[in-house]
Amino acid sequence: MKCELISVGDELLIGQTINTNASWLGEQLNNLGFTIAHGLVISDQKKDIVNALNQAENRSDIVLITGGLGPTNDDITKHTLTEYFNTTLELDKEIEQNIIDYFTNRNLPILQTNKDQALIPKACQVLPNSRGSASGMWFEKNGVIFISLPGVPYEMKGIMNDHVFTKLLALKGEGSVVINRTVRTHGMGESFLAEVIKSWENNLLKDDLKLAYLPSPGIVKLRISIIGKDKASSEEKLNYYVSELVKLIPDQIYGYGNASMEGVVGELLKENNRTLSTAESCTGGNVSKMLTSISGSSSFFNGSIVSYSNQSKSELLDVNEQNIEKYGAVSQQVVEQMAANVRLKFNSDFGISTSGIAGPSGGTTEKPVGTVWIAVANKDKVVSKKLNLGYNRERNIHVSSLSVLNLLRLELLKN
Amino acid sequence: MKCELISVGDELLIGQTINTNASWLGEQLNNLGFTIAHGLVISDQKKDIVNALNQAENRSDIVLITGGLGPTNDDITKHTLTEYFNTTLELDKEIEQNIIDYFTNRNLPILQTNKDQALIPKACQVLPNSRGSASGMWFEKNGVIFISLPGVPYEMKGIMNDHVFTKLLALKGEGSVVINRTVRTHGMGESFLAEVIKSWENNLLKDDLKLAYLPSPGIVKLRISIIGKDKASSEEKLNYYVSELVKLIPDQIYGYGNASMEGVVGELLKENNRTLSTAESCTGGNVSKMLTSISGSSSFFNGSIVSYSNQSKSELLDVNEQNIEKYGAVSQQVVEQMAANVRLKFNSDFGISTSGIAGPSGGTTEKPVGTVWIAVANKDKVVSKKLNLGYNRERNIHVSSLSVLNLLRLELLKN
Repeated sequence: MKCELISVGDELLIGQTINTNASWLGEQLNNLGFTIAHGLVISDQKKDIVNALNQAENRSDIVLITGGLGPTNDDITKHTLTEYFNTTLELDKEIEQNIIDYFTNRNLPILQTNKDQALIPKACQVLPNSRGSASGMWFEKNGVIFISLPGVPYEMKGIMNDHVFTKLLALKGEGSVVINRTVRTHGMGESFLAEVIKSWENNLLKDDLKLAYLPSPGIVKLRISIIGKDKASSEEKLNYYVSELVKLIPDQIYGYGNASMEGVVGELLKENNRTLSTAESCTGGNVSKMLTSISGSSSFFNGSIVSYSNQSKSELLDVNEQNIEKYGAVSQQVVEQMAANVRLKFNSDFGISTSGIAGPSGGTTEKPVGTVWIAVANKDKVVSKKLNLGYNRERNIHVSSLSVLNLLRLELLKN
Repeated sequence: MKCELISVGDELLIGQTINTNASWLGEQLNNLGFTIAHGLVISDQKKDIVNALNQAENRSDIVLITGGLGPTNDDITKHTLTEYFNTTLELDKEIEQNIIDYFTNRNLPILQTNKDQALIPKACQVLPNSRGSASGMWFEKNGVIFISLPGVPYEMKGIMNDHVFTKLLALKGEGSVVINRTVRTHGMGESFLAEVIKSWENNLLKDDLKLAYLPSPGIVKLRISIIGKDKASSEEKLNYYVSELVKLIPDQIYGYGNASMEGVVGELLKENNRTLSTAESCTGGNVSKMLTSISGSSSFFNGSIVSYSNQSKSELLDVNEQNIEKYGAVSQQVVEQMAANVRLKFNSDFGISTSGIAGPSGGTTEKPVGTVWIAVANKDKVVSKKLNLGYNRERNIHVSSLSVLNLLRLELLKN
């Protein structure tokens, strides 16, 4: 089935807002097997909206219109649609009450223009918006579906997830629910990971689930999707495949959905009543910055010493000067001492450390740019690991930070 | 004059790539006084491209087409345009040589498909691309201008800046060159800044220059644009207004163009042969992370102590425990001691420090969330400043980091 996207708004045409709504809708619809043949951006003008609707009606099966549903005078999409579908506006009492509740709960004054958002075209099916005051609308004309959605991305996505995807799939006759789960992995490159989970992936595809690899530096997200007849059995099937995946790559999976590595590590520390301090050389404070981005991190994080010079490694972290001379600052000996000593300096349960050549300069034949040592220490032992990363400084800092947090995560799970 | 943007590429329709080209073009053209009435995204298919061109020809004066100019089989924009304008392809020897040089200089193998990019439609004016192998093309038909550009943002922007804007302005008859300058400021909110530079702005507008305020957390960028008859006199005029602006807000301007605060501070430290260390509480390592994101920062940055607990403030930074008890960790006394002592700990010329309540929890009536103290110490003195920020943790960390680096910048300029 052919989809067409119409984005209404002057702010999109003059580049004040980047049209991420169209990208998101395109990606989601493509994943569900719909074809997206046209994307239009037009201004908040009746004539342009009507032209776009006429054109879309002649060449597409499903037309998604975003934007222009706000309460102000320049928002004319709803009125234009009312005219286009030759219908009238009618007050929807339930929606009016929802809008009043929405404003009252937030202690906001409610204006007549806000209440007017409960005026809905008679000819449409309402797509309720639980995140804002502009309702989504579903129209049908000559076998073509027209879906009007608010332009606020959070509200638009909410309505799509709550109502629209399921309805569209029903139209396609391919079941009625769609469920996605994102599994977050670290420590294995995309192609290596694909090799390891190959037979699992084949079974999954045979079972009519879908898999997308979403790689970013240091992280490969696996998005598993299922389109099924009912929610319970689809979820059961999805859970089965996720649990089989966990068996294959237990150390690599650090979280699900929107979880962050630092968030997962923070939760584990809190649950186990453990504290942490960090000694950073090549990551330059980035690990500390990630951990303290979490509100309430002072309950598990004591602090960090960023020892960017050799002098500070020996003076502030008591690293043996002879070790630095003999093995170099980027070595197992030094990074292990850093982790063990920063634990003691801050009286923490765990100490973690990084030392490496972030680049682009500073590499040697023996230790090229991207050589990084990481370590985790507790009162009983120190574990360490060597990473061989690439040439990009920003990426090396980011991936080293993720890696040392993952090493700590694995140690925390052993306790 | 009415502009229309046509973006060609399946990757845009399925959301693999976000259409930032259209946003950038829309913003630039709007700044120059053109109207952008339509934006289209279509797939790499001849039929769709021809339909889009036909439609655009009937309603717009200037049509900008991006994408589909690469060397592979799915790139069909050039062939479609050749047919549309009823012309033929011809080898352009100069462009062929440029392409050969481009690949030879980069030690890359050159294929016939690369050389074929020197085949140019006879009916067009070439817009040379010094950043890649796909040339831009300028066509005219029935008084409408069609401009075809590569989809790679860096190449597309290069061709626009090198050739197209000036040609478009000449068409409009409003002079022939356009020059932009971006002035980066910190430390004054947008509306306050607008008040301070009001009469300067009025003069600037009267003199036919344009001004845009581009605010982001902790930073307001001012983009000044001039459209003039010739380059030398336009630059002179622009320089005059920039120098007048510097007189009004000397402490707030930290750089121009794409300069970052940490980059500017790093350069000043290097120029003056000075070293730095940081003591961070509420910024949690972010200042250190910003400084070490600069390649070669080890020449001026010695390291950092992130003292997230009170214990670490006294034990690792020798902050007087009685001061912490009497004034609290978020106080002038403590932050000044942190700066002075971290300077000594790392044997640096400068020590800088932060201590505050980043939020969202931890605030009191006396010291609400967003209360932050920052300090800068050298061998002679310590200066400090209190910030009253807002409720967003991420923003508070970011703005505090910028503020302490700016305070250091002002001290460095005094030396």
